[in-house]
Amino acid sequence: MLDLLLTNAAVATMADGRPFGLVKDGAVGIEKGKIAWIGAAAQAPPATTVRDLSGKVLTPGLVDPHTHIVYGEEGLIDFEVLSQGGQRWDLEPAGGGVGNLVKRTRLLSEEALYAASRARMSRLIANGVTTVESKSGAGLDMDTELRSMRVSRRLGRDLPVTVVSTYLGAHGLAPEFAGRRDDYVTFMSEEVLPEAVRQGLVDQVDGFCDKVGFTHAQMDRLFAKARLYGLGVKLHADQYTDFGAGAVVARHRGLSADHLEYASEATVRGMAEAGTVATLLAGAHLSLNETQKPPVKLFRELGVPMALATNSNPVSSPTVSPASQMHLACFLFRLTPEEALKGFTVNGARALGLQASAGLIAVGRAADLAVWDTDDPRGIAYAIGGAPCLAVIKDGRIVHEAPVPRFDRPDLVRA
Amino acid sequence: MLDLLLTNAAVATMADGRPFGLVKDGAVGIEKGKIAWIGAAAQAPPATTVRDLSGKVLTPGLVDPHTHIVYGEEGLIDFEVLSQGGQRWDLEPAGGGVGNLVKRTRLLSEEALYAASRARMSRLIANGVTTVESKSGAGLDMDTELRSMRVSRRLGRDLPVTVVSTYLGAHGLAPEFAGRRDDYVTFMSEEVLPEAVRQGLVDQVDGFCDKVGFTHAQMDRLFAKARLYGLGVKLHADQYTDFGAGAVVARHRGLSADHLEYASEATVRGMAEAGTVATLLAGAHLSLNETQKPPVKLFRELGVPMALATNSNPVSSPTVSPASQMHLACFLFRLTPEEALKGFTVNGARALGLQASAGLIAVGRAADLAVWDTDDPRGIAYAIGGAPCLAVIKDGRIVHEAPVPRFDRPDLVRA
Ligand SMILES: [Zn+2]
Ligand SMILES: [Zn+2]
Repeated sequence: MLDLLLTNAAVATMADGRPFGLVKDGAVGIEKGKIAWIGAAAQAPPATTVRDLSGKVLTPGLVDPHTHIVYGEEGLIDFEVLSQGGQRWDLEPAGGGVGNLVKRTRLLSEEALYAASRARMSRLIANGVTTVESKSGAGLDMDTELRSMRVSRRLGRDLPVTVVSTYLGAHGLAPEFAGRRDDYVTFMSEEVLPEAVRQGLVDQVDGFCDKVGFTHAQMDRLFAKARLYGLGVKLHADQYTDFGAGAVVARHRGLSADHLEYASEATVRGMAEAGTVATLLAGAHLSLNETQKPPVKLFRELGVPMALATNSNPVSSPTVSPASQMHLACFLFRLTPEEALKGFTVNGARALGLQASAGLIAVGRAADLAVWDTDDPRGIAYAIGGAPCLAVIKDGRIVHEAPVPRFDRPDLVRA
Repeated sequence: MLDLLLTNAAVATMADGRPFGLVKDGAVGIEKGKIAWIGAAAQAPPATTVRDLSGKVLTPGLVDPHTHIVYGEEGLIDFEVLSQGGQRWDLEPAGGGVGNLVKRTRLLSEEALYAASRARMSRLIANGVTTVESKSGAGLDMDTELRSMRVSRRLGRDLPVTVVSTYLGAHGLAPEFAGRRDDYVTFMSEEVLPEAVRQGLVDQVDGFCDKVGFTHAQMDRLFAKARLYGLGVKLHADQYTDFGAGAVVARHRGLSADHLEYASEATVRGMAEAGTVATLLAGAHLSLNETQKPPVKLFRELGVPMALATNSNPVSSPTVSPASQMHLACFLFRLTPEEALKGFTVNGARALGLQASAGLIAVGRAADLAVWDTDDPRGIAYAIGGAPCLAVIKDGRIVHEAPVPRFDRPDLVRA
């Protein structure tokens, strides 16, 4: 006997074969937190609890493989500068940007950081996410970086979401290391990272490899250390210029290269050979008034999987809505609706090295699922702002429901 | 004694004087459905019911002055064409566009049309809207146009929202009038409009004045009839080319000209003199892959009020989220966060001729209000997809609440 049957759904399994791996008039059965049955609603076995989804779309719980969700305040200065057409170099002089973020995050207690991040993460879950990557990088010093990673770990324990914790000390140069970039790389590699590993706070290592960021050689050094600890690596790559950063990740057989607006064909070829995922970030593309598009056709031709992510951060992508990113990725990057949903499911999982456990509706996998207010899987990315998420299931339990507003209580109906 | 006090809020009254007409640490008192008191929370008089808003932003209920929200199905064909870079002329050959919308809407019963539109309108209300314009124009024949306007009227009666019903027979040429555009204008002016007026279904008249739409002379004829009935007039104007359509509205002292990407300086001057509002539609701008921007600086210089709207429609602006439009208007049109909120409040109201009753928090007005999940009024437009709406008050009653998801029920916390 199944514990729970979700029936009368358009089941977008995301399995290969047909578009969206769609099972029309389908059902998904859950037992002991795992998916136990998938098929036609009419053939579904009995279950203790049955939920009729009225034809709505059921997808894998979304995987958001790139966020900076652990921070305090909204970045309203950045918003005012960028929305008026400002460029990234206009942020710091205005009192915003990563410099401001670092300064303010260092001042926050762990409890304050946790409370703000928890509210945001709760919204992300309510918008369909069951697996999320969470980066440090808003502190850059030992204490704040460890505090941020501790918050990521706590969020994964306290909330119904799987959190992958990433050390992003190489987000920028800590101000106390001004003019001593190599020393900062040594500090990260020999002090912060070992301590984070010792405390069990870190799963992956990320950096900002760019003309105004860290060099290939500096990332090589940090990544070598990361690989010693068995951690996956990834990069903020080729966002502002063709710096060959995607190729650096590929050389380390990294999980993903992220942004990639300026990635060259050689870089994409390297990624294809290494199996490195291209994580495309439409929110930052819009916010930073970027016009150069990532080489989507080349990713397709060479078989580089494309992931999407909210990139949730206060400066360049203030959002907790994956569906709004899918919509933007379709219009700004010309992804198809199916590629957009793959970006937040199968390919999002792959960008985290979790392709064996997340991002797909398949028998035997954890029952991480999301229900959407549309009856066609293309409908998730279709609406501006994305389709609303109606319910979220984590490990077989319905952890969130947001019913369609009805206004049919008689006292709400005006005469 | 007040009936209801909303206290501990950042009250964005939208009154002139300071940015957002902001009252920090403010409160708003409600009596008999009207706003009875505005001031500092510490000085607020007693009330039967007190709601502490925890510092969140309280705004006027939003006014959405341009929607085509009465329709049946999602426009997924249009989405697939446009998101891949297709142009508006690619829609009809693919089986989408307004032609397809008209064909399908004609087949829908009033109940089916009502049910689909009601679900959508309910979402719009839950996203903060208390006053909305709803256009016909998806039928073009007598029966379907009247049916659509009847649905608009029913939505206004059944849901906690004020609906302004607009006759948009001049959305396009009805297929049965192919080659006889002047005859169609006669049909609209002498048959449909009089019948809509007779049945009390219409408040305003709108049209599509363009090289591929109706001429100045044709709109003059329809508008002359509208003004005979005392109805406000407005136009879809200068969206694809400088057609002088905004000037036509201005000449008729119309309420608003909408879209306006290609409006000339002469047109904007005419609008300024006539007091005609510029309603800017960022959703269609993005969806239709438009690159020409509306002349925002000129609107500012000449004092033309700028309204925003969802333009909710299945082809070029599938959305029920005003906040997502505010965000897009900031990035795509360089509106400031305050201009964006004015667009959906004071100026949205003005675009509907309702500036004396809607879009402003002021003593004596109907208590139509919205609460937002941010503590700064700039925060509504800041997030990609917009800030979530926490509560909606219509005529002094809390008609919708969407609390922040918390996940603190013990059974939701994983061990
Ligand atoms: Zn990032
Ligand atoms: Zn329109």
